[in-house]
Amino acid sequence: MQTSEFDRATAVEPDGSGRYLGRVLPGWDISGNANGGYLLALASQAMRTEAGRAHPVTVTAHYLTPAPEGPAEVLTEVVKAGRRFATVTGSLRQDGVERIRVMGTFGDLSEPDEGGPELIRAAHPELPDFDQLSTRRAGLVAIEDRLDVRLHPDDARFDDGIKSGAPVLRGWFAFADGRPIDPLALLLVCDAFPPAVFNIDITPGWVPTIELTVHVRRVPVPGPLRCRFETRFITNGCFEEDGEVWDSAGRLVAQSRQLALTPKPAASSSPR
Amino acid sequence: MQTSEFDRATAVEPDGSGRYLGRVLPGWDISGNANGGYLLALASQAMRTEAGRAHPVTVTAHYLTPAPEGPAEVLTEVVKAGRRFATVTGSLRQDGVERIRVMGTFGDLSEPDEGGPELIRAAHPELPDFDQLSTRRAGLVAIEDRLDVRLHPDDARFDDGIKSGAPVLRGWFAFADGRPIDPLALLLVCDAFPPAVFNIDITPGWVPTIELTVHVRRVPVPGPLRCRFETRFITNGCFEEDGEVWDSAGRLVAQSRQLALTPKPAASSSPR
Repeated sequence: MQTSEFDRATAVEPDGSGRYLGRVLPGWDISGNANGGYLLALASQAMRTEAGRAHPVTVTAHYLTPAPEGPAEVLTEVVKAGRRFATVTGSLRQDGVERIRVMGTFGDLSEPDEGGPELIRAAHPELPDFDQLSTRRAGLVAIEDRLDVRLHPDDARFDDGIKSGAPVLRGWFAFADGRPIDPLALLLVCDAFPPAVFNIDITPGWVPTIELTVHVRRVPVPGPLRCRFETRFITNGCFEEDGEVWDSAGRLVAQSRQLALTPKPAASSSPR
Repeated sequence: MQTSEFDRATAVEPDGSGRYLGRVLPGWDISGNANGGYLLALASQAMRTEAGRAHPVTVTAHYLTPAPEGPAEVLTEVVKAGRRFATVTGSLRQDGVERIRVMGTFGDLSEPDEGGPELIRAAHPELPDFDQLSTRRAGLVAIEDRLDVRLHPDDARFDDGIKSGAPVLRGWFAFADGRPIDPLALLLVCDAFPPAVFNIDITPGWVPTIELTVHVRRVPVPGPLRCRFETRFITNGCFEEDGEVWDSAGRLVAQSRQLALTPKPAASSSPR
């Protein structure tokens, strides 16, 4: 069996005491710093394994220091193991330096709760068909080669200096190697697009994330995902970016929100 | 000097080793279980004290077990103390039983970052003047006596069985005793309204919160706050509720999101 790139990049080995050994792989980075969604998925892989639960339900990461490629460990602690959910913390470290601290609640989303009330007050973004769009290749970030992100043409021209004027990015997400998208991969999806603020008149550059929370609402059916990312408030040096992710059956599968620092012209190497 | 009710309810004493002693006070509960925003504020009071930082910037709580009134302790750990921010964890316990686990990033929001880009893509909710509305008194929950929540008349009639049909609640927030609203109090504000889903055809009842995240975007100027809470997706047994809080100068001061379990007709005493 061929192992997918994402599975290799999130593989962890337990040492039996809640500590997991893994590796921040090259090729998932932006200018040498691993993508935040990838780091969250790597830590959550260890956390869900320790908890013995299939899926992340709600996870939050606080970003402490940038993570280069290389060996990593995740120290986990099961805070509470309940009947339906388990709450777990994770600390991803490299050479003793903590990169991210994660807290999450894990469970099993594979049996949908179909009997309860349903209310959907927003639709998935309207996009041209996946096959009609081309894969984004800005050529700047290595992670692009792992992913198959296809942006809505109206939102995609900022790479050529033509900003839409609205901090919104809509597009499809798939893995370049065709790996199916499961709840663990949704943690990556929610941080895999360029920042939506690149579509407004703001200095593009390093956008340091302080915190990212992802709610996994459902296991996606196979196929590429429709995604929509939007920033509504840039104020006082910070902005939020909200994400909605829909599967090919048109069902909401994840929501995300992150708090980030407004890009500065002189980007520093450390976000904090 | 008269101490406000909220200050008494969130008072903590350090023991010098990162442990803080406090008390879950009566009068901040719903049917004997302390309000989740109040517990988050109590834990965050200890966390910001331990970190030596003025304000919560982004905090996330996972709710483990309901908290009755009585003595409590908060075990804190400073994960990273940076120049601008400190990241801290907190564990609120009673008699050794953990109630909530919190992770947060703290800093000083009192000097607004006015030179950077600003973009506000939503307005505060339109409300009748504070003085023209009356304080909500459903008579069911003790916390109502501490707060002065004044709902928009269009959203307020669910107490009489007249639901608006939209899971939205708009209204003013103030403390009943007139205490100014600072960033710590915003953590309470974001969980102080009835659930917005009470305005749709869903069984009212115990709505167990799994996780609540609050972003404090600015220190409010004095005066009551305009709040708007909305649920957009009820699916697969869960729903999110998003909050926006604006100060009397019309500026966004907080955003929140929580993930909760859909109310069930037969409410159980434990959410997990």
